[in-house]
Amino acid sequence: MSSENKCSKSYDKFVAINELAKRRGFFWPSFEIYGGSGGFVTYGPLGTRLKQNIEAKLRELFVKKIGIYEIESSVITPAKVFEASGHVAHFKEPMVECQECHTRFRADHLLEDKGVGSAEAEKMSLEDIKIELENRNAVCPDCGCKFTNPQRYLTMFETTIGPYSGAVGYGRPEAAQNIFVEFNRLYIAAREHLPFGVIQIGHALRNEISPRQGLIRLREFTIADLEFFFNPEESSCQLLQEVENEVLPILLCETRLKESDSITKITVREALNKKIILSEWQAFFMAQAKCLLVELGVPAEKQRFIEKLPWEKAHYSSQSFDQEVLVDRWGWVEVSGHAYRTDYDLACHMKASGVDMTVYKECFEPIETEEIIVKPIMAKLGPIYKNEAGKVAAEIAKIPAQQIIDSIQSTGSFVVNNCEIKADQVDIIRQKKTDRGKRFIPHVVEPSFGCDRLFYVALEYAYGIKDDRVVMSFPREIAPVQVGIYPLMSKDGLDFKAKEVQRLLCNNGFMTELDETGSIGRRYARADEAGIQLGITIDYDTLKDNSVTIRDRDSWRQIRISLEDLTEQLHSYFKGKVNFEELGSIIKK
Amino acid sequence: MSSENKCSKSYDKFVAINELAKRRGFFWPSFEIYGGSGGFVTYGPLGTRLKQNIEAKLRELFVKKIGIYEIESSVITPAKVFEASGHVAHFKEPMVECQECHTRFRADHLLEDKGVGSAEAEKMSLEDIKIELENRNAVCPDCGCKFTNPQRYLTMFETTIGPYSGAVGYGRPEAAQNIFVEFNRLYIAAREHLPFGVIQIGHALRNEISPRQGLIRLREFTIADLEFFFNPEESSCQLLQEVENEVLPILLCETRLKESDSITKITVREALNKKIILSEWQAFFMAQAKCLLVELGVPAEKQRFIEKLPWEKAHYSSQSFDQEVLVDRWGWVEVSGHAYRTDYDLACHMKASGVDMTVYKECFEPIETEEIIVKPIMAKLGPIYKNEAGKVAAEIAKIPAQQIIDSIQSTGSFVVNNCEIKADQVDIIRQKKTDRGKRFIPHVVEPSFGCDRLFYVALEYAYGIKDDRVVMSFPREIAPVQVGIYPLMSKDGLDFKAKEVQRLLCNNGFMTELDETGSIGRRYARADEAGIQLGITIDYDTLKDNSVTIRDRDSWRQIRISLEDLTEQLHSYFKGKVNFEELGSIIKK
Repeated sequence: MSSENKCSKSYDKFVAINELAKRRGFFWPSFEIYGGSGGFVTYGPLGTRLKQNIEAKLRELFVKKIGIYEIESSVITPAKVFEASGHVAHFKEPMVECQECHTRFRADHLLEDKGVGSAEAEKMSLEDIKIELENRNAVCPDCGCKFTNPQRYLTMFETTIGPYSGAVGYGRPEAAQNIFVEFNRLYIAAREHLPFGVIQIGHALRNEISPRQGLIRLREFTIADLEFFFNPEESSCQLLQEVENEVLPILLCETRLKESDSITKITVREALNKKIILSEWQAFFMAQAKCLLVELGVPAEKQRFIEKLPWEKAHYSSQSFDQEVLVDRWGWVEVSGHAYRTDYDLACHMKASGVDMTVYKECFEPIETEEIIVKPIMAKLGPIYKNEAGKVAAEIAKIPAQQIIDSIQSTGSFVVNNCEIKADQVDIIRQKKTDRGKRFIPHVVEPSFGCDRLFYVALEYAYGIKDDRVVMSFPREIAPVQVGIYPLMSKDGLDFKAKEVQRLLCNNGFMTELDETGSIGRRYARADEAGIQLGITIDYDTLKDNSVTIRDRDSWRQIRISLEDLTEQLHSYFKGKVNFEELGSIIKK
Repeated sequence: MSSENKCSKSYDKFVAINELAKRRGFFWPSFEIYGGSGGFVTYGPLGTRLKQNIEAKLRELFVKKIGIYEIESSVITPAKVFEASGHVAHFKEPMVECQECHTRFRADHLLEDKGVGSAEAEKMSLEDIKIELENRNAVCPDCGCKFTNPQRYLTMFETTIGPYSGAVGYGRPEAAQNIFVEFNRLYIAAREHLPFGVIQIGHALRNEISPRQGLIRLREFTIADLEFFFNPEESSCQLLQEVENEVLPILLCETRLKESDSITKITVREALNKKIILSEWQAFFMAQAKCLLVELGVPAEKQRFIEKLPWEKAHYSSQSFDQEVLVDRWGWVEVSGHAYRTDYDLACHMKASGVDMTVYKECFEPIETEEIIVKPIMAKLGPIYKNEAGKVAAEIAKIPAQQIIDSIQSTGSFVVNNCEIKADQVDIIRQKKTDRGKRFIPHVVEPSFGCDRLFYVALEYAYGIKDDRVVMSFPREIAPVQVGIYPLMSKDGLDFKAKEVQRLLCNNGFMTELDETGSIGRRYARADEAGIQLGITIDYDTLKDNSVTIRDRDSWRQIRISLEDLTEQLHSYFKGKVNFEELGSIIKK
């Protein structure tokens, strides 16, 4: 299946999930009462919890376990930042307008609809796009008329900061630049040691021309950008052995260029040895990303890393892979990007701001270098250039010494400001210099996750049908509600007991939901749709022997457990230490 | 001390905290390499964790314990939403411009600098402001020249959504409207039961004319808006008894109007009985807010609730209180607002969108009402109005029945479209109607927290000096790092043991930091400044008997504990179940 493969099934998981999501409050298109506004969604109560659980997993992995720092900065950003980073120049999409109804479209998407591959459409010039649209008789999908000439449209939201119209600001299209511009402060926070990484998880904005595909292409979305800084001369990853045997499924550039989409399965170690992945840290984060997706419920065989072709890569990247997940309607969809950004960003900001962003590295052994100085002999220059001699000497100092030496060697002289300086008018002095360290710009490897896409694939892979009913089988770590609590009746003290159990679980940190209405069967069905991991039923026996029934969402099996053991057992269960069957005595298979 | 009291001490906690915050990476002004951009901050590694811990406390309290739903929606919002809500008309500040240097200022702030109270300045018309500025000889603080006439400046960030210039969008200045516009879907998610509440914690934007006061007045900030929906005819709070004896320190309107700032200390129950607070739910949330601040480290005696004067209240509010905290430089600063918004917002959006946002409430007893119908007698109208008779009848149907009856009673006829209709040309029919329920717009009480301000007051109240060193004594629940880990030496296996302890604690959910550089004393000092709650030292005895020393940040006392008991004991400690001294055997007081 190619990445451009889109199926047009009338009913598929995408439709089913969007319907369920609206009905149960996972998410829905925002501002419906005002006719909606494309590209914005609202996460409802269940969705917000699920999304937070997914983001918590990112933090758990990167911040808690690996020790990456986290920052939080603003969405609104002064124009200077995105001018320096290259976004103002490059963050554009080709757009055409219908000459008749004036509706605007992304030109490359129109071409894709006419059968042009997305990778191919992406590299086309505006002229190519124009010709291709004409050749393929592309007309306005709304009214059937012709298009204007394509133009590049800047897909950042633009605004004004403060009361002066000149102070342009943009909504950040990613969370990475906040990290780069604050590098000097972050380096201090890292106590001036490399390597270190910084992550930012937050909202970002892309002013899409025509948003589509639901959660896949939003105008406002949540991004998790992790920038990992290291010395390019000490680029080995100390944590590599944790993942070196992890198998990465990669669709290589060379395979893609042969029009094939066959996957190369290769361990991290091998990929590095064969220079398929250039940076150890990049390989490390790719392996982590693969494991993360498995933990979100996406099996390894539904994942692949696609190496980006030279013209597909972002302007800053030296090697890029997209992690993709296979989804029902859209085929392969990117969920994370892995770019080796080298020193591109810090160098850009250094140049634009004039602020030094290099770091100093002491060497074990002092480095001896030879310094060449070209010293004008004023006693000879003076008589020739008179009171211009000082200026000439100053100009000579600006020319690299090696250039002067080369010129003298080949012609016996060199030229500065139209004056020919002879070899005997300067002294060439070679002197030894000892450096105890050196300054350099750190290199950066970036894994970047689209949280809304992680959310979507988690929903799609949790979605299942059992006995004609929807069951959302989330991994227990990310289930939006951990425990549902159901008094058999809303009377006879069962309702009070249920509240007591809820308070007990709340105080022990569990996310719970109490549901008192409808038959137990209906409540179980609702809970399965919401992906509530476990259901606790309070019945008349509970009042007698202080035990409750726990039902598993996925197997529908039931066990009986004493309330005294409940919180401890549930802690073990949600930490993955025990299985459901080990929680208590099985009463229903 | 009045709320306008500002001290101009050259060195105070505000300065000390900002200096510490930059140095240790709590927060700093963003974009410094480009000369900065007022009103934007970056939370560094320590600050991000502290802020997340504070937000986690809001979630713990409202979402987990009280059962409030949480949503997440977009910052960018179509103009229609804020036109309907009244923001486009009202969310403005008075601004003047220097005639000479063209710098722009908030006119009310200039007046405050000239000694006008902020409450007074807030209610002034533009004409009043102009006169008052002239009377007080206010001139440009930068160049000393005169100002232009004051104007109202819309303090929302404006942008364009998508590729059409007409599609105006605003950056939301609060998170509440997202909840109101999605009310119908949220009501379904709440299974169509009142009362229920919805919270949104997220970024919001206010395009301040001249931001100042560091974290207190930002252009981009984090807000936690909680909208609690209830039936105004069933407005009692079921959870009130949990807080009814909580004492609220209130500065009442009537006290303020007497130019006094003396506090009325009153229990929640009494405040409701005396109708000082109109809504039980509002009183409930005010009590929760007070307890929350205590848990963040702000003692009750440094808090007050100030009742807003009629002209200080937002346009939507029927009764408002601001929760204020006393801070060193700025005096009393608002950290949360408590507004009884009635049905204002839902009614606005209903009107603007045409979408029904009422809810249906079944009654215990059916309600019998009398319906009056005015029925034109066509046999009489026909001969008079000929083929216009149908139209006349249709027009009659549009007039409220009671109006027709009143007119007939006083004049014997009524007029429709310039035609006089006599009493005998219509039948007045009275019929009984039975309703099994009724439709109404829910009322709303809103507590709204400024998370950056909560963050700032938590920093200020944690700030202390001990033996000439800064110690950040955060409550243990919000300490940005829970446990520091310090191998005595970076050799002899102590370094490996330290990493092992770190992994153990990480896997058990603790936030840790390993620090291997410098003397133990220096590392303790660094940890105290960062507010790290506990420090674990790995020494040579650790390798022999598997025990470690734990040091308390605040008392600097030390205990010795076996690694076997460590995680369980730390869990108890951070849950507040045991004190430091109970963790192990005391070795240093």
